[in-house]
Order: sequence, then structure tokens, then C-alpha cells
Amino acid sequence: MAGMFITFEGGEGAGKSTQVRLLQQHLATIVPSGRVVMTREPGGTPGAEAIRDLLLFGKHDLSLRAETLMHFSARYDHVDHLIRPALEAGKIVISDRFTDSTEAYQGYGRGAGDHDILALIASLRQQTGVVPDLTFILDIPRTVARERLRARGNRPDRYEAATEAFHARVAEGFAAIARHEPDRCITLDATLPPDILARVIAGHVTTRLPMPQEGT
Amino acid sequence: MAGMFITFEGGEGAGKSTQVRLLQQHLATIVPSGRVVMTREPGGTPGAEAIRDLLLFGKHDLSLRAETLMHFSARYDHVDHLIRPALEAGKIVISDRFTDSTEAYQGYGRGAGDHDILALIASLRQQTGVVPDLTFILDIPRTVARERLRARGNRPDRYEAATEAFHARVAEGFAAIARHEPDRCITLDATLPPDILARVIAGHVTTRLPMPQEGT
Repeated sequence: MAGMFITFEGGEGAGKSTQVRLLQQHLATIVPSGRVVMTREPGGTPGAEAIRDLLLFGKHDLSLRAETLMHFSARYDHVDHLIRPALEAGKIVISDRFTDSTEAYQGYGRGAGDHDILALIASLRQQTGVVPDLTFILDIPRTVARERLRARGNRPDRYEAATEAFHARVAEGFAAIARHEPDRCITLDATLPPDILARVIAGHVTTRLPMPQEGT
Repeated sequence: MAGMFITFEGGEGAGKSTQVRLLQQHLATIVPSGRVVMTREPGGTPGAEAIRDLLLFGKHDLSLRAETLMHFSARYDHVDHLIRPALEAGKIVISDRFTDSTEAYQGYGRGAGDHDILALIASLRQQTGVVPDLTFILDIPRTVARERLRARGNRPDRYEAATEAFHARVAEGFAAIARHEPDRCITLDATLPPDILARVIAGHVTTRLPMPQEGT
């Protein structure tokens, strides 16, 4: 596809949404602003945001298989209605979370097993052709993340409220993903000052930017 | 599994929920009442009922792939949390709709293609071991169904409000399913009086009831 798909991954409190915003500000200085699309998962489209509400704040725990498919249901709406059309139009799409989060949270964290989720990811890729070009995994010690989340004071969602053992398995999942796909994934120390981190990220993105095509 | 899984399928206005209720009343006269479980799809468990709300009355149209996975997400919760435990305990589970509805509505009606949905159904069966023992497909001419729905006067859901061409494709889907699985599926004329239909259904079920096992 003509555009570029960049994803940010990592545990809660790693500073993903800050870096998404800083990367957008950087890109605004070098490409036309209409060419950059910021989004997030779960969610990103009206239908998928409604699913996000159920997933993060729903009153009832879904079975693990049901929860995993809900994430993919939201993701298909997001890809079909937003990400793919934007990439086909040559845009740069930056998403706060994508498939790696499902692999880390449901596969490693909740123990769905890597196999089923990898099959769903392969099927998504085959059916839609959408796969991230570049993924930043923001790595943060859980003690630091907990402090940041406490300082934010938001109502914790289902995953933020999970056990420490869960978060340790999620971190292990992200590390495994980065090892398996070193060309796509760049792991960064998220305890660095945000502006330093933003400059490192901007450097990686700038060198990989696709050349604008005629008409874009 | 020790129990028996009976599903009712067919378009809106075919009288499925009436027949589910009448079958339950019949079974109450021949087996202990705690042995019979009535349920429905989408829904059947608290988590899946929340998904049902989104699917039937959500403000935003999901992409076809997203909608199909939402149905399977709700179904996994329903199977994992209700249907499979009940069947393993030797119960008779009667569900108003199951996988055939997804095949007819999303596969035929919305044109997802039979192939993807059959793969999801095969995966559900392989992962959970749950498959209907007996399925009644209530067949009704669309003109009669429309009259019945008008008489009910309920707020139409997403599917009831769909076009006539959609409903024709759904009916074609149910007919194809019945042809492919004649041992499991019994197609019945839903314009018959409900009490007559109930006696036909009761006959089919009674002859196939599993012998109660010790302790059930």
C-alpha cells in the first residue's frame, strides 16, 4: 500500500499516547497535515469505540476466547473503515496499539496461547493486506508505570486493574514479539525524557517515510 | 457430551421463541425441570447479551468482517460459560438461534461468503466440542412473517429492518444448510398452527432424548 503504518505498543503508563502526539507534531512540520492520521485500539472508528467501552469497562467478564474475538472484531472495523482506506490513499497512519497488544495481553497475559492469536493475525493480514511497517515498543519497568498511572488518577480499566503477575507476562510477550520481528519492531526505554524519546522516534520514522506519490 | 443440544433457526416472525417455550413446557412433563435450559443468540449470558445490544441496536454499522466476529465473540462466551457446562452436566439445552443464523444472515444475507464462516464454525466445534444434535428450521413465507412482525409492533432491530432482497438471501441460506445437513436439520412449515407444530417438534425430540445418566 502507498502509505505507511506505524504502531506504538507497550504496557499502560509507558507514554504511548504522548509519543503518538509528539510524532504527529513532528510529521506536521515535514508532510501536509492531511496526510497524517492518528488513531488507537481498541477503537478508532465509531463502531470499534463502542466495542472498546464493552472491553475495557463492561460489567461482565467475557470468556478468554470471546474477549480475543471481540478485539479482532473491533480491529476489523478499524482496518476496513479507517486504516486500509487511509493507507491506500497514501497516508501515514499512527496507531496507539494494534495486533501486538492482543498477542501480549490475551496471548501471554491471559494465556490464550500464542498459536490461536497468530492464526487470527495471519488471517487479518491475508484478508486485508494491512500490517505495520514500523512498531515502537515502549518498555517500562512496572514500578515506574504504576507510579505514572497513580499520578494520572484515571479510573483504571479492566487491564490496568489486573494483577502484577499478569503485567509481567504482558511485558514478556512484548519482549518476545520484538525478538521475533526485529526488522519491524524497535524497543525503546520509556523511562527516557519524552522529548528525547520523541527525537529518537522521529529519526526512525523520517528515514523510512515513503516518497509521496503524485496527487498525494 | 452427556446432554442434548437443540437449536431453532429461521427468519424473524417464524415463531421460534414460541416453539422454544412450548418445547420446554413439553419437556417439563417428562424430565426433571432442572434438566432443561432455554437460551438464545446472540446473547444467552450477561456478557453476550451486552454484545447483542450492540449488534442489534448499536448506532454504528460495523464492517461485515467485524460483525461476523462479534457474533462469534458472543457465541464463544455463550458456549464457554453456559452451553458446554450445561451439556457436560447432562442437561438439554434449547437455543433460539445458533451458528446457522450466522451462516444465513452474514454468509448469505450480507454476502460474507460461506467459506470464512464455515471455517469459524469448524474452529468453534474443534475448540469447544459443541455442535447441535438437532436443529429445527422454521420456514415461513416472507409475506406472512412481515404481517406477524407488524402485529407484534416491537421496535425493529438491525436485521428486521433490512431489505426484502436480504431476507430472500437469508431464506435461501437456511434452505441450503438444511440440504447439506439432513441428519441434523428438520425443516418445518411455520404457517402451521403453533400447537400442531409443537407436537411435531415434541415427537422428534422425544425419540432422540438421551437416557439420563446416574446422578442427573
